[in-house]
Amino acid sequence: MLEPTSIESKPITQTESLSTRFQRVRQFTEQLCQTLEPEDCVVQSMPDASPIRWHLAHTTWFFETFLLVPFEPQYSPKHSEYAVLFNSYYNTIGQQFPRSQRGLLSRPTVAEVWKYRQRIDALVISLLERLSGDPELDAVVELGLQHEQQHQELMLTDIKHLFSCNPLFPAFQSSADHVAATRDTRDTHDMKWYSQTEQLSWFGHDCKGFCFDNELPRHQHFVPSFQLAHRLVTNREFLCFIQDGGYQRPELWLSMGWHNVQDQRWKHPLYWHRQADDWLEFTLSGLLPIDWDQPVCHVSYFEADAYARWAGCRLPTEFEWELAAKKQSTSGNFAESMRFQPIADTGPSNGIHQMFGDTWEWTSSAYAAYPGYQPAAGALGEYNGKFMCNQFVLRGGSCATSASHIRKTYRNFFPPDARWQFSGIRLAQ
Amino acid sequence: MLEPTSIESKPITQTESLSTRFQRVRQFTEQLCQTLEPEDCVVQSMPDASPIRWHLAHTTWFFETFLLVPFEPQYSPKHSEYAVLFNSYYNTIGQQFPRSQRGLLSRPTVAEVWKYRQRIDALVISLLERLSGDPELDAVVELGLQHEQQHQELMLTDIKHLFSCNPLFPAFQSSADHVAATRDTRDTHDMKWYSQTEQLSWFGHDCKGFCFDNELPRHQHFVPSFQLAHRLVTNREFLCFIQDGGYQRPELWLSMGWHNVQDQRWKHPLYWHRQADDWLEFTLSGLLPIDWDQPVCHVSYFEADAYARWAGCRLPTEFEWELAAKKQSTSGNFAESMRFQPIADTGPSNGIHQMFGDTWEWTSSAYAAYPGYQPAAGALGEYNGKFMCNQFVLRGGSCATSASHIRKTYRNFFPPDARWQFSGIRLAQ
Amino acid sequence: MLEPTSIESKPITQTESLSTRFQRVRQFTEQLCQTLEPEDCVVQSMPDASPIRWHLAHTTWFFETFLLVPFEPQYSPKHSEYAVLFNSYYNTIGQQFPRSQRGLLSRPTVAEVWKYRQRIDALVISLLERLSGDPELDAVVELGLQHEQQHQELMLTDIKHLFSCNPLFPAFQSSADHVAATRDTRDTHDMKWYSQTEQLSWFGHDCKGFCFDNELPRHQHFVPSFQLAHRLVTNREFLCFIQDGGYQRPELWLSMGWHNVQDQRWKHPLYWHRQADDWLEFTLSGLLPIDWDQPVCHVSYFEADAYARWAGCRLPTEFEWELAAKKQSTSGNFAESMRFQPIADTGPSNGIHQMFGDTWEWTSSAYAAYPGYQPAAGALGEYNGKFMCNQFVLRGGSCATSASHIRKTYRNFFPPDARWQFSGIRLAQ
Amino acid sequence: MLEPTSIESKPITQTESLSTRFQRVRQFTEQLCQTLEPEDCVVQSMPDASPIRWHLAHTTWFFETFLLVPFEPQYSPKHSEYAVLFNSYYNTIGQQFPRSQRGLLSRPTVAEVWKYRQRIDALVISLLERLSGDPELDAVVELGLQHEQQHQELMLTDIKHLFSCNPLFPAFQSSADHVAATRDTRDTHDMKWYSQTEQLSWFGHDCKGFCFDNELPRHQHFVPSFQLAHRLVTNREFLCFIQDGGYQRPELWLSMGWHNVQDQRWKHPLYWHRQADDWLEFTLSGLLPIDWDQPVCHVSYFEADAYARWAGCRLPTEFEWELAAKKQSTSGNFAESMRFQPIADTGPSNGIHQMFGDTWEWTSSAYAAYPGYQPAAGALGEYNGKFMCNQFVLRGGSCATSASHIRKTYRNFFPPDARWQFSGIRLAQ
Repeated sequence: MLEPTSIESKPITQTESLSTRFQRVRQFTEQLCQTLEPEDCVVQSMPDASPIRWHLAHTTWFFETFLLVPFEPQYSPKHSEYAVLFNSYYNTIGQQFPRSQRGLLSRPTVAEVWKYRQRIDALVISLLERLSGDPELDAVVELGLQHEQQHQELMLTDIKHLFSCNPLFPAFQSSADHVAATRDTRDTHDMKWYSQTEQLSWFGHDCKGFCFDNELPRHQHFVPSFQLAHRLVTNREFLCFIQDGGYQRPELWLSMGWHNVQDQRWKHPLYWHRQADDWLEFTLSGLLPIDWDQPVCHVSYFEADAYARWAGCRLPTEFEWELAAKKQSTSGNFAESMRFQPIADTGPSNGIHQMFGDTWEWTSSAYAAYPGYQPAAGALGEYNGKFMCNQFVLRGGSCATSASHIRKTYRNFFPPDARWQFSGIRLAQ
Repeated sequence: MLEPTSIESKPITQTESLSTRFQRVRQFTEQLCQTLEPEDCVVQSMPDASPIRWHLAHTTWFFETFLLVPFEPQYSPKHSEYAVLFNSYYNTIGQQFPRSQRGLLSRPTVAEVWKYRQRIDALVISLLERLSGDPELDAVVELGLQHEQQHQELMLTDIKHLFSCNPLFPAFQSSADHVAATRDTRDTHDMKWYSQTEQLSWFGHDCKGFCFDNELPRHQHFVPSFQLAHRLVTNREFLCFIQDGGYQRPELWLSMGWHNVQDQRWKHPLYWHRQADDWLEFTLSGLLPIDWDQPVCHVSYFEADAYARWAGCRLPTEFEWELAAKKQSTSGNFAESMRFQPIADTGPSNGIHQMFGDTWEWTSSAYAAYPGYQPAAGALGEYNGKFMCNQFVLRGGSCATSASHIRKTYRNFFPPDARWQFSGIRLAQ
Repeated sequence: MLEPTSIESKPITQTESLSTRFQRVRQFTEQLCQTLEPEDCVVQSMPDASPIRWHLAHTTWFFETFLLVPFEPQYSPKHSEYAVLFNSYYNTIGQQFPRSQRGLLSRPTVAEVWKYRQRIDALVISLLERLSGDPELDAVVELGLQHEQQHQELMLTDIKHLFSCNPLFPAFQSSADHVAATRDTRDTHDMKWYSQTEQLSWFGHDCKGFCFDNELPRHQHFVPSFQLAHRLVTNREFLCFIQDGGYQRPELWLSMGWHNVQDQRWKHPLYWHRQADDWLEFTLSGLLPIDWDQPVCHVSYFEADAYARWAGCRLPTEFEWELAAKKQSTSGNFAESMRFQPIADTGPSNGIHQMFGDTWEWTSSAYAAYPGYQPAAGALGEYNGKFMCNQFVLRGGSCATSASHIRKTYRNFFPPDARWQFSGIRLAQ
Repeated sequence: MLEPTSIESKPITQTESLSTRFQRVRQFTEQLCQTLEPEDCVVQSMPDASPIRWHLAHTTWFFETFLLVPFEPQYSPKHSEYAVLFNSYYNTIGQQFPRSQRGLLSRPTVAEVWKYRQRIDALVISLLERLSGDPELDAVVELGLQHEQQHQELMLTDIKHLFSCNPLFPAFQSSADHVAATRDTRDTHDMKWYSQTEQLSWFGHDCKGFCFDNELPRHQHFVPSFQLAHRLVTNREFLCFIQDGGYQRPELWLSMGWHNVQDQRWKHPLYWHRQADDWLEFTLSGLLPIDWDQPVCHVSYFEADAYARWAGCRLPTEFEWELAAKKQSTSGNFAESMRFQPIADTGPSNGIHQMFGDTWEWTSSAYAAYPGYQPAAGALGEYNGKFMCNQFVLRGGSCATSASHIRKTYRNFFPPDARWQFSGIRLAQ
């Protein structure tokens, strides 16, 4: 069992050398697999999720394909078939084994994939020792690390989903810390509202340090005056919505959301379980009593939007969120704590809390190109731009995101019915 | 057969009395059914389309439910079951017969529905004679007329889709006019670009006259500088895209669009047919040779977006479109001409052409609430707001839209894979 | 409204000339359409059912294709596209418009199809006047008439299914007779059992008069001793099964049947409706109180089999049925009575009742070739043999079958989940 | 890698004690798993197949549930949740984890299941030492062993299917023996026909020794005269069918089979692969060149039936097969050889060959109850009878069946579209 407190990771910082950071990011992936059996690593619980083994191989293939092949003249991939098996969606590179069938592959085994990782890691480190400093190469390594961190979060959400399908409810980690962390937080503060007057402001990344292409270009946007809730919506508040018939009242829902509610028979957030009069929640530490002060998590955009309407509020736009975030620090409850569960708000009574970490925050902004957006050239141009359709922007990272991965301008995106990410609700009005 | 030239409709204007306008709008619906057999009126060709008989009954039920029931104290619906059969999506009113099963209803017959219309029409006219001038009542009548005009357009697109499924390719109207109208337009002008500098400007309706709630509130939005094409993309231009492998090159497509291309085996716009070396197009006048100078029509957002990428351009945002439209007149090729087919650009060589009529123009703007948006109270609040998800805004009306229905601030919306509307492409850069 | 008693049909007999029989069979088809509106004739309520207009055209295409084309040298089909639209499943003839999309065709109109029928009828009658007596030609005409009678029954079952989907529950015919016929039959006799000792016997048609190829060749089969119920299972008896939890007890069902029960949420026969404490039944005369003495009808093989198991019995094999039928007359409640509803058993207390007419009787025999079976040559060989898979044999005809169509050796067949035919239950043990 | 020749199993015989047989059958299951990684044991490649780990646990649960629970008074299951996870389809016992989701379970791990097996095995052996000889107990043990042998065959077919989905084409065993066994068999004998005159004969098991309930009761059946092919159809012969357009000619197919051909795009037997001009076959030893003299294998009933029609023959009934088998020995190419691939006919030129082992032989008999059939009492009554619908009988066992498992009266059954079993073709006429 993972013992979270003892192994808390020290955040990776940009001051470390690229080679060091490469090794530390890659090691964190390994750390996440400590408690997993080979069996856990090959099963795919739904088309949106991937087997852990696939994540391990795909992130390695990414370095092989985008770093070793172009920058290491002698290099030729040892397993040519991995190009098909572990390419996610890069049509420019070639064909892909169908996403929904990733769970059909029992081979290569997990052990073979670990060997593949070790081999590629050694080659990358050797390459970095020789060529680090080349801006083009460094950019690919940087992107590869950011990419690996994204997959670290997906590994957590995918294994959580897989274990949740099993009536045995296996635990990914010990729950001791989970209980300890929440025992003394039984007093949720009333919602306060942070006000902002209208303004024409600049949004997007300033190009100092790494960012994804979808955070660019920096551009002006006019934001009318608004108010933003000082913390996330809690489980306790969301329970009121449920008890008030929230899942039975079509007038609270988007039309498409209401169809989801009926087709999928949604009655509560994804991992809640009702047992007689008790409510439990499936966590990475197994099935536990719900901590009512914790932020509600694993809700879809549809549920976030319906909750906001029920509360007489709305969700913020991504611009409102970013404007408010500008004045906040990016600290929070991130993956480095190895807790992997949002925690109750315990901050001081003034200021905006929980903007970073805990849960991704659904915004009402459809995921779209910023004015003047240009995807990267070549295959890596497929990274972000081609998904700008029928998805909504989430901001701020979650308890499964690395602190070294998040930024104020970071734009995550998922379809409005997605629930298996650590996604929660911040209100606006 | 409808003989278009002889029956061209005089546009309905706001200077006419509400009662006159009510009668003229309702008569136009009847006019559209002149060539239809009872059999044509009950079949549903796909879940997105409705049988003509359903449109006839639903628009009548709308006046009955939202006008007669609340404003005519003695009124009680004669056919209580129509409330279920002909309610579209108003959960506030009650249950609905499933949308995808509307084509299962052979009864009430078309003749019975015409009687229903006549009965309700007489009651509405009588009510209007007594109470017109009451702002609340007038507002409902106005909304009912706008609603009827929307369904007139849907009747045209739905019957076109139905007839297109039949290997006999029935014609809705005579094609004489079709040929005549396009014979002398064989010279498409090169694309010119209308430039606009960046500005913070006001968007949305000014509340003078009718508008839908989704056009409100009027608000400021910052628009960076842009260029807009002076006319729509033509069939000839779209053919170049096809011949250049447009439908086989994943790099041109949104990820979701590419899945559509492969799953649905899209190879050309919806109603194009390849016969040996010829291209034909199914129109409301039957299967005809493609007029290459006409604007391309019946393309999805995915195809519009891929075409724009192929052309090195992009689609405009709805704000860019509205900004450019502010200086244009709203005249164009509308439903009143009874032509129901976009026509080639024959305008003078300066200015922006075809902004109104011909084809709806896909914008890159996801359909979303304007800042401060409030849906109408009660059941009519379900009209627009609950669809603000996974749809894109289209602007400008089409050859199947009534001139009296369109506005510069008018926001139409459809999912990105919808092709059966008269939807086309205007480029921006 | 059809007034059944006034229009009862005189059975067609083999002593009439082929030309007379041709005209009478074709007229009976017309008679069945008396109360139908054009709208009723084009809608398809499910993939298994066809629109009435399709039946009218297909049976006509059958005579055109298999009679006029080969036997009338000058004949050339006027509407070449009908060959695709109205071919059911004859791959030898050519392609077919997809069965599940027959309901997409609003054209040709019903009126046009009636004209098509009149034109072909005139040509067939003229041909018969000249050439009747040619055994090959007579055989095709005979097959065409049998085929038409099969479609007459399907027209009744298909229109019943279509009307049952409509919340208005339209009536195909007046119900006056329905009530009259059943009022004085309130006393169901106890089940008696007809015993038969084991024997090696001959089965199948003796080739005197018409039969389908699947009734051949006449062959020997050994039948162990058995007992057969003297009448059909009644609605009253089937209600006991329901009230005893029949639809909730997996041990009573075939595995595949139990999946159907759960997936389709079967809780009673297809057309039963529970309203508060009452049970109603949708009939061709509309929604009526269930007559508990009538044979239960519109049950699938799965339900028949489960009922039999619950009753401690089983279904008969088709050989048991045929052996018992040999000594019975083929009279019964057939389509000629225009009643189209099974009636309660009122026969004398000895003998086997209801073997013919009322409801088709599910047997436990999978539909298979008799030893030595040879399908007919050419396209007509596709009539029966290619369906010998995953279907069960039904025997005896129903209230929707023509008396002149049924035989003791007649083998009908449907998949085990089919419910929309007039299918009922006779027990064996 | 499994090295087949070295580990050939000595057939288990009825003369061994029940305890010995129990241990040997259970050990053979373990032997089959020698080359499997944990990853291979949890993936489910399709709803019809189960993960190996599930087979291992289910067969153990069978002994626990039907033997230990009723016969060992003190016994109480240690893992109560296994009752849901590893119950296959016994509704009498309780709920089942959905069959199609068996592949979602990464826990219990394979190692945990092996421990479960060891624990149950020890308890069973202890029980047998004390109580063997009790006819009721012995009958359950016997059934459990037969059941385990059925699952051994399914393990082989399921792992073959799983590996066939992987572009790496993993090998379950070494192929050395495979090649050796077939090198000297390059001369297929012409088909000869075994003739049998008509007779009334007895069929079904005589109750000496074990049989399944579906082989009972022994009863008389009349079989007309017939001829049976002296060997199985070879790959070479089946290739002629393919090259003659067999998969493109609807007239050769059952209607439902033709739909399968088109929907599934069948063009050859399940595991054949065309590579340029070569044909390969996926085997448990990986992808190998096709041995044209081997019996064709992994064909559905639809393909077997179409092949027979193309060859101017038909498939035998199960009675014809059993009649012919009565005079044959039950020796053949069975699982004990650890070859798991049919081998070419090398027998003497007279007599009927390959009746047992090599491939299961599709018969034209729908799987149905014998006259007077009674399923076993209690939960075990769900073993066979409830599947008597839409399946066809196969006879004779395959190269994946244990010699000690097969009988002349043995009735296997699969749906007509199933291809993943070792199923082949014997012709009749």
